[in-house]
Amino acid sequence: MIIVGASGTMGKHLSNAFRKEHEVIEVASECGDIRVDITSTESIENLFKQVGAFDALISTAGPTYVGPWKKMTDKEFRKGIEGKLMGQINLVLIGQHYINPKGSFSLITGALTHEPQKNFANASAANGAVEAFVRAAAIELENGIRINAVSPTVIENSPQYFPFFPGDIPVTMQQLEYGFRKSVFGANTGQIIKPY
Amino acid sequence: MIIVGASGTMGKHLSNAFRKEHEVIEVASECGDIRVDITSTESIENLFKQVGAFDALISTAGPTYVGPWKKMTDKEFRKGIEGKLMGQINLVLIGQHYINPKGSFSLITGALTHEPQKNFANASAANGAVEAFVRAAAIELENGIRINAVSPTVIENSPQYFPFFPGDIPVTMQQLEYGFRKSVFGANTGQIIKPY
Repeated sequence: MIIVGASGTMGKHLSNAFRKEHEVIEVASECGDIRVDITSTESIENLFKQVGAFDALISTAGPTYVGPWKKMTDKEFRKGIEGKLMGQINLVLIGQHYINPKGSFSLITGALTHEPQKNFANASAANGAVEAFVRAAAIELENGIRINAVSPTVIENSPQYFPFFPGDIPVTMQQLEYGFRKSVFGANTGQIIKPY
Repeated sequence: MIIVGASGTMGKHLSNAFRKEHEVIEVASECGDIRVDITSTESIENLFKQVGAFDALISTAGPTYVGPWKKMTDKEFRKGIEGKLMGQINLVLIGQHYINPKGSFSLITGALTHEPQKNFANASAANGAVEAFVRAAAIELENGIRINAVSPTVIENSPQYFPFFPGDIPVTMQQLEYGFRKSVFGANTGQIIKPY
């Protein structure tokens, strides 16, 4: 099992949870077993060449621009386009050539797709793209390969974001883990899993 | 009223319909009153500098990659990312500085956001991004400025696409026009309008 974004709040929790039962390869931009820059297709290709065949890929890697609407131009918007959007989509477009039959891709999106908050238009757009891509990829992938997205609200272990999400009940790390368990070990495909 | 994509099947119909009642500025990449390349922020900025203040912008401009999944790499995927996705988002991010109070943006998406078809993963992703962006922009835009997307299925006047959309009941040009009428002349904002 490959976990991309393994150094982040979500990735760390998932890696700790899953490595008790499975072989986990931790992937992150600055540390981990393998370093990858998900904004580079060459770097992603290198990751899969090193790992070889695998059964499951989890991505919790979602860089996006957070900031005032009035300062949001094409330049800022590219952070989420290259990161959370194309970064995750390229993990699938390239990874499909290495994944084992009946393997699975589990990407990260978030409630911002349908419940926007101020300052987060870039994340909303990236999430919306990834969710629609997941539904489209599910009808294209062959050999029983599945793909889902897990879509939490703000997460328990990131209290610095609570003020930006008034009224959102934080998703616990346990709930988040259950969401990814459903995606990786369940039978569904093309689903947007809300772990709450 | 600015219509971007005025030379396309949808744009032509909307321009003919609305110019009976309103001043219409036709914008397209190769012809029209003003030529614009929506993949260039400089070209978009030029458009608005020429037009000055305006009340409504309609976009039917949605270049995306259509083709077999197995040939879809980052390179092909960029067609929709730069075109239907960032092209339309940049029309709003830049156009908001020129639009009149109580003005409106009406973008184009499509049923592929939620109902994928083979060969169209790029359009699904672009649509999903634009729809989530519309919801996010609606809570950010000030001075009564509204934003919606119109989301048809395959359209009546594009029979060449019918074989790709088995079972989809084509949206008539009249229905499409009603969808844009609701967006431009109604009071809603942040809505994905299904004209069927």
